[in-house]
Amino acid sequence: MIKAGIVGATGYAGQQLFYILNNHKDVEVQFISAHSSVGVCISELYGNYSNIIQQKCIGMDKAIESLDNIDVIFLALPHGTAFELVEKAYKKGVKVIDLGADYRIDDHKVYENWYNVKHENPELIKEAVYGLCEINREKIKGSSIVANPGCYTTAGILAMYPLIKHGIVDEKKVVIDAASGTSGAGRSANVNNLFCEVNENYKAYGVTNHRHTPEIEQELTKAGGSEVLISFTPHLVPMNRGILATCYGFLKKDVTHDMIKEIYEKEYGDESFIRLLEKFPETRWVRGTNFCDISFKIDERTGRIVVVSAIDNLVKGAAGQAVQNMNILFGLNETEGIDNLAMAP
Amino acid sequence: MIKAGIVGATGYAGQQLFYILNNHKDVEVQFISAHSSVGVCISELYGNYSNIIQQKCIGMDKAIESLDNIDVIFLALPHGTAFELVEKAYKKGVKVIDLGADYRIDDHKVYENWYNVKHENPELIKEAVYGLCEINREKIKGSSIVANPGCYTTAGILAMYPLIKHGIVDEKKVVIDAASGTSGAGRSANVNNLFCEVNENYKAYGVTNHRHTPEIEQELTKAGGSEVLISFTPHLVPMNRGILATCYGFLKKDVTHDMIKEIYEKEYGDESFIRLLEKFPETRWVRGTNFCDISFKIDERTGRIVVVSAIDNLVKGAAGQAVQNMNILFGLNETEGIDNLAMAP
Amino acid sequence: MIKAGIVGATGYAGQQLFYILNNHKDVEVQFISAHSSVGVCISELYGNYSNIIQQKCIGMDKAIESLDNIDVIFLALPHGTAFELVEKAYKKGVKVIDLGADYRIDDHKVYENWYNVKHENPELIKEAVYGLCEINREKIKGSSIVANPGCYTTAGILAMYPLIKHGIVDEKKVVIDAASGTSGAGRSANVNNLFCEVNENYKAYGVTNHRHTPEIEQELTKAGGSEVLISFTPHLVPMNRGILATCYGFLKKDVTHDMIKEIYEKEYGDESFIRLLEKFPETRWVRGTNFCDISFKIDERTGRIVVVSAIDNLVKGAAGQAVQNMNILFGLNETEGIDNLAMAP
Amino acid sequence: MIKAGIVGATGYAGQQLFYILNNHKDVEVQFISAHSSVGVCISELYGNYSNIIQQKCIGMDKAIESLDNIDVIFLALPHGTAFELVEKAYKKGVKVIDLGADYRIDDHKVYENWYNVKHENPELIKEAVYGLCEINREKIKGSSIVANPGCYTTAGILAMYPLIKHGIVDEKKVVIDAASGTSGAGRSANVNNLFCEVNENYKAYGVTNHRHTPEIEQELTKAGGSEVLISFTPHLVPMNRGILATCYGFLKKDVTHDMIKEIYEKEYGDESFIRLLEKFPETRWVRGTNFCDISFKIDERTGRIVVVSAIDNLVKGAAGQAVQNMNILFGLNETEGIDNLAMAP
Repeated sequence: MIKAGIVGATGYAGQQLFYILNNHKDVEVQFISAHSSVGVCISELYGNYSNIIQQKCIGMDKAIESLDNIDVIFLALPHGTAFELVEKAYKKGVKVIDLGADYRIDDHKVYENWYNVKHENPELIKEAVYGLCEINREKIKGSSIVANPGCYTTAGILAMYPLIKHGIVDEKKVVIDAASGTSGAGRSANVNNLFCEVNENYKAYGVTNHRHTPEIEQELTKAGGSEVLISFTPHLVPMNRGILATCYGFLKKDVTHDMIKEIYEKEYGDESFIRLLEKFPETRWVRGTNFCDISFKIDERTGRIVVVSAIDNLVKGAAGQAVQNMNILFGLNETEGIDNLAMAP
Repeated sequence: MIKAGIVGATGYAGQQLFYILNNHKDVEVQFISAHSSVGVCISELYGNYSNIIQQKCIGMDKAIESLDNIDVIFLALPHGTAFELVEKAYKKGVKVIDLGADYRIDDHKVYENWYNVKHENPELIKEAVYGLCEINREKIKGSSIVANPGCYTTAGILAMYPLIKHGIVDEKKVVIDAASGTSGAGRSANVNNLFCEVNENYKAYGVTNHRHTPEIEQELTKAGGSEVLISFTPHLVPMNRGILATCYGFLKKDVTHDMIKEIYEKEYGDESFIRLLEKFPETRWVRGTNFCDISFKIDERTGRIVVVSAIDNLVKGAAGQAVQNMNILFGLNETEGIDNLAMAP
Repeated sequence: MIKAGIVGATGYAGQQLFYILNNHKDVEVQFISAHSSVGVCISELYGNYSNIIQQKCIGMDKAIESLDNIDVIFLALPHGTAFELVEKAYKKGVKVIDLGADYRIDDHKVYENWYNVKHENPELIKEAVYGLCEINREKIKGSSIVANPGCYTTAGILAMYPLIKHGIVDEKKVVIDAASGTSGAGRSANVNNLFCEVNENYKAYGVTNHRHTPEIEQELTKAGGSEVLISFTPHLVPMNRGILATCYGFLKKDVTHDMIKEIYEKEYGDESFIRLLEKFPETRWVRGTNFCDISFKIDERTGRIVVVSAIDNLVKGAAGQAVQNMNILFGLNETEGIDNLAMAP
Repeated sequence: MIKAGIVGATGYAGQQLFYILNNHKDVEVQFISAHSSVGVCISELYGNYSNIIQQKCIGMDKAIESLDNIDVIFLALPHGTAFELVEKAYKKGVKVIDLGADYRIDDHKVYENWYNVKHENPELIKEAVYGLCEINREKIKGSSIVANPGCYTTAGILAMYPLIKHGIVDEKKVVIDAASGTSGAGRSANVNNLFCEVNENYKAYGVTNHRHTPEIEQELTKAGGSEVLISFTPHLVPMNRGILATCYGFLKKDVTHDMIKEIYEKEYGDESFIRLLEKFPETRWVRGTNFCDISFKIDERTGRIVVVSAIDNLVKGAAGQAVQNMNILFGLNETEGIDNLAMAP
């Protein structure tokens, strides 16, 4: 049994992780930590666990003390708050899977610039692997720290990666327009996220400056070998879960539908969690799952290609991918614990 | 392996059943039937199955032909359309689990009166057991036909059963006010169920004459031994799933919270799918699950008691309970295939 | 022109009042007050006013200073916070329309008991008139303080008033089961009201002890002349606006549909804002309006009657009724400024 | 009084028109026509009119007969169904305001190509003016037929018009990513638009081939004088109303925020229905109104500009703009009957 700890277990991503790990046959959750709910039973906060699971939250100090008892620690914390913990875990040889942003950006100055916070142990960044499983699987296997990708990032990169890697589209002109369910905004009390403020509304936010931008550019640049520039605009949808990314590329050469299909098949044909579809994806069909559904269409009229991808922001965009990373790290079947389909409606 | 067939597999309840049975380790779905989608792949209708499950729908005639190959047939059809099929299955010794209303009412004249249709084989009604597992478990075990309860019915009866059985409330004055998510209205094209007609709205329907009324009265009357009269009002909520029943009883005697709690514990304390709570239930905590959450409060000021129950209308209110009945019929662990918790949010 | 001030102008009810008064041809809003947004432009908080209305919020102290410049003051504050202001306004002869609960309950001890707060000027309660316009119109005309009814209260009382007044139903056995859109919970940051907590959920709250209970009982008791006892259960619906009250009465005598219809016609036939319907009401048809839609059905089988009423909680349940009260107080046409219909969908 | 007729009055756009015209002080609606509801009272279909408005629907034949009694006819019909009616009205000198697509495209072959239907009176196209009021106001004044723009079109063109007209962005590389509430899909019974299919979902549709594409390109091309090529992707949002268009342009020259602001001010500074904002628009702030809210941001890093616009698809995107066109045609104040603000929440 893999012994795991979860820090930040009561936010939407953290509890999704707790949910998945409770159903994972090879994992035992040793502790859940949440600084604002120390001593509170998880079922007090999430009634789905009522009468079934009575685990209580511990504080950060206790979590640190407990590092000796675990094999892997999952962090679901705001950026800039986990430097110390990561370092301690790293030194003790506990595998770290960080759902936050602190170890995703290779250049700590870029990180500091976009996130407006000082990186406290930049030397650990090079120990970290960017945990987009489909692309970095081999590197993940032996790593100590996995920087689990952001939600928008996962959808955006997986959609465009084959086109950039194979030089199909102009890497200086990518547009990624995406929309997310509201769980992406977290569970903190905030007037902007009240039901009446979100319901019956649709809006863009973070226009030109959302923090997932450098992460997408970094990984696509690595894929294509030449600097990628994207416009990325997230939007807020009145629904709980799901991300859809609608991505636009300007074709650099004449291509056919079959040629592109072959490229996607080559890159993703063996992947358990990527479904290449003929129909365009919808968020409901991946809700609660670790799938990334992808489809594309060439627009000969304008010389462009449109790729649409859909994920569940809390699963493939956060907790599910974290477990997929854990499965890779510990040599388990990659789909263990995350092989469910979406329930409709 | 239990070999199963599903008739009416593409409606919301039918596909929920298909979903559950696909995850049930002891069941093999031999066929799915849907008269309006013969030859169509289930993943064309429900994109959650894309690239994973390719089963195609067959027609009713083929379903009837295939009776020889199955152990159990699940019917998720409109009332009044399955008489022939039930008879044929019964004669062949295939267990029938009917999610429709045709075999729920003991007196076929009451059925005909409320449903406005002639019952074609009333003699089979006495072969049928009302499949509310927690109450009729022993009878279900040896039965040939299980009349799976209605969704509102399950929530209403489970809430009031202990109080009626133990003579706590006036059986002539019960009020059951309930609300359901929109999947309860089915998947047929109908202007009333369009998104823009349901969203941002709340309404009552079937006031004083909803067809689940006689079913609730019949079962509660059996429980208490004297005729029960209820007012039952269903409401439509702009959400996909879930039923909440708020039930009012007029106390016949002085009781305390502890006395009532003891009664509920006695009736349901060993049940896997009933969770007796201190907090009042919410539909989200049972979404996608087979649980019925129940809580109550005595109102000394008015001499009444309020009991609130919550279920998922498609699971405990339909497909999940059908599988629970199958588990009982075939001597399996009662929670097999339906022991998941709700995913939040 | 009537000069008006609004205190608590940035909550959902307060801003609805501001919206209506801005469209009222006989009113000039002299100031809007909001202690948490002093100096902030209303259009910063509510983007519907962008580039059109630039009024800035003032603080309570300034509001008090400004009493000399106004004819009427509207209070949309939490209970227990307006005693001083009401007293000052009263002494200066400024008409007070209080959307809060402080002056609704005749007996200040009952108020203190249900609201858990000490009433600071109980002597003013007898100066206040309960502002349910359809019932207390004449008393409102000359009053100094109007205690504007609660939202659930308005729906519940208007539905049952004719039946109680005319002795049709057992006044000791009334059940009022109601549901509200989420704007009823106010605009304060609170995890329970986040989009992801409310969406796809339905729940009861305040079971047996919601504070609107004594208000409903008090007014129905006055109507019928003998003590009324109700069970009142509110529920939360994932929609922005609207209240539906489903009310149950036990008939004391044999009545026909026509007899009851006549009673409702007699009480409400001349009312501008009550629509007696044959179909059952739905909240969408009164959204954004000052209407209360009412329908009923006799259940001969059980000897009961079910009455359903629908209002917009922010309009007829709060701000619209406040303006209706103002129109009455100042001798204007009662529908002035609040005669719009709902926009669909 | 202007005498008006509405054909197609019971769809979402048609009834929005009916709603607005009923509040327009200079208009009298002579008839409403709806082939599927002949003889039915509008309040049977839309309960907001209950007890207030009793107008009954007539059929198309009666509508044609009634042309002599009206000054203007509004058509809210599916494309390809109004050719005959337009011709008859035109010949009788009745002003035509067509909310459909038949007269929007200058070249009838382009129309036939995108809409897959033969145009029956292409000679009338040149009599028609494209009714985007802010851009074609002068031409609209004297016209006989106004081709009211599509909903997405209005949002897209208004957002990009100033940039294209002033040669700021590369006209061959425009991307318009937009999302709409579900009322845009109309009120016909269709499984895809059922509540449970739309709720908790977000999807793209019409990728690369939505019919609003040629309309946007045509008008932007006229504005800039050189062929504009756009990628346009619409998405479906689980809400009733609203369109948000997020538009991307590749800058052709170095520009500053102030330079662009000046251009938008120049084009729209005097417009009653365009609000240039510093914050990014949200659909809720224009809900139920005729406003188009616009904001932009230059992305120096990538050499691009992002413009976001928001409208209500049924008002500025359909019925409101139709009334604005009528106001222009008949020399009324342009804001008459459509000057309301959005109600929040």
